Amino acid sequence: MPFVSHPVFARSALAVAVVVSLACTATQAQQAPRTSQADIIKQSAASDWRRLDPENTLVMEIHGKPVIMELAARFAPLHVANIRALTRSGYYTGSGVVRVQDNYVTQWADPHDEDKAKAKPLGTALAKLPAEFSIPLKDLPLTRFQDADGWAPVSGFVDGLPVAADPAQNQAWIAHCYGVVGAARGNQPDSSNGTSLYAIIGQAPRALDLNITVVGRVVQGMDVLSSLPRGPGTMGFYEKPEQAIPITRARLLADMPPRERPAIEVMRTDTPTWAALVEASRHAVGPWAVRSALHSNICNRSVPTRATAAPET
Amino acid sequence: MPFVSHPVFARSALAVAVVVSLACTATQAQQAPRTSQADIIKQSAASDWRRLDPENTLVMEIHGKPVIMELAARFAPLHVANIRALTRSGYYTGSGVVRVQDNYVTQWADPHDEDKAKAKPLGTALAKLPAEFSIPLKDLPLTRFQDADGWAPVSGFVDGLPVAADPAQNQAWIAHCYGVVGAARGNQPDSSNGTSLYAIIGQAPRALDLNITVVGRVVQGMDVLSSLPRGPGTMGFYEKPEQAIPITRARLLADMPPRERPAIEVMRTDTPTWAALVEASRHAVGPWAVRSALHSNICNRSVPTRATAAPET
Repeated sequence: MPFVSHPVFARSALAVAVVVSLACTATQAQQAPRTSQADIIKQSAASDWRRLDPENTLVMEIHGKPVIMELAARFAPLHVANIRALTRSGYYTGSGVVRVQDNYVTQWADPHDEDKAKAKPLGTALAKLPAEFSIPLKDLPLTRFQDADGWAPVSGFVDGLPVAADPAQNQAWIAHCYGVVGAARGNQPDSSNGTSLYAIIGQAPRALDLNITVVGRVVQGMDVLSSLPRGPGTMGFYEKPEQAIPITRARLLADMPPRERPAIEVMRTDTPTWAALVEASRHAVGPWAVRSALHSNICNRSVPTRATAAPET
Repeated sequence: MPFVSHPVFARSALAVAVVVSLACTATQAQQAPRTSQADIIKQSAASDWRRLDPENTLVMEIHGKPVIMELAARFAPLHVANIRALTRSGYYTGSGVVRVQDNYVTQWADPHDEDKAKAKPLGTALAKLPAEFSIPLKDLPLTRFQDADGWAPVSGFVDGLPVAADPAQNQAWIAHCYGVVGAARGNQPDSSNGTSLYAIIGQAPRALDLNITVVGRVVQGMDVLSSLPRGPGTMGFYEKPEQAIPITRARLLADMPPRERPAIEVMRTDTPTWAALVEASRHAVGPWAVRSALHSNICNRSVPTRATAAPET
């Protein structure tokens, strides 16, 4: 569904139809009222949206609900290839959520991965992969944000992913914004292989950028991942394997019968409509807000999704 | 409990005791290894912590668990006085969570506040208050952050609250970081009175700063507020009053018998220990991280809490 930020209304204000701009001064009357983010989305063209790429979309099921991730093949091709292999070997089906740490991550894995007798085999997937923490910035189709990010010299979006970059190092990487998914690792930088993944469920922990391989972004189902019970202890791990919340099914979109595929679209992040949406977020629009932030950050911009009439056949 | 960010470990790495610094170069060997945030907290003195102020602490109960808020009397004295009055008149007891919008807010209110027959009376609390969006920066004991915030010219902490400021306007305000609590309002800037409050449960929506009165911060219980089921629809409101999740009890700490009071302390944000904690967060410390962010933001710094041996009598 489209995601736009909403101010916090007192519930009785929902029926209020006051248009504050009618009371504006002569100077303000000369400015055309800004279009709201909701209206920019409503008025968008079909070409402002795109379907999910079946080979790069992982559809999991938790508590009977879909959790859908786009895989960032441009940024982490080896990890993404391994995730495809793990998915197709059935590795994730029957794995589960093993950790929920408030304002940080929800992490899933094979709950028995430390037990040689019970650990799931990797099938055709590789146990060892190189670290894929960043890619070259040169020639990357990055739609840049004008506002300073703070954590990196440059920021913007690529393929619906929030991206930070350092031109001096010719490096670009996916930023650890809400909903972004990474590959858990041990102390060795090259010790992730996709068998355990995590999604950010709170304030973007940008200090993780360039410390770990980011593999994609959840486009539907963050409401599921973020509302799971937090685990005890500081790191939020569930204590026993049997407490893991099962991932009852995990398939690539490509391997789902067309009529079962979720019928959703994601907004493109390389169009004037997207640029207008970002710009609108920098201003106080509508009767509620009184002050414009005149600033935005990649982690404050959720890329909208919407249902489509029918799945692509 | 103390809150420090933890990198995402593959679970098998928890037992790893590799100290990577042993393999470091001669240059690195000359630098004293940095103390981790966890160790800074462990090594802190008693004077680095403070008890909660009983007149400025609201203790609610949801699903049998405490949700504890510090009230920001310095920043919103009239709203805080009204919240005390509402609490003491029993207004919040029996109210409930009416809205949970993913990556945004959990909001609570009297579920029947639009029904004149059923709406709870305000008791001695006022129905109308002035807006309290900011206070003067002059003479505010703000412990400043060195890194640029982006959303405001200056940022730092006051009384455990994340604060942004504009010296040119002599204004300071509480930033809408995770766990911060504000007073819901209608379209009129002065239409909040504390009868409906919200807590931030996702990426800090800093565009709300200076648009609404912020009244405090949750110091314990965000795990409860953040894990509630999201409401349907874009704004996450629960559809019917009977779906509200009850706040079964709400009292000021001052009105609780001492032996019932939660035994917790909050770290002070005006000490060298706090400054050291903030500085440590800017660096890759320990065997896992490979790259230092060399940046921090007020919304990335959670003020630690810890249990104490016994409540203050």
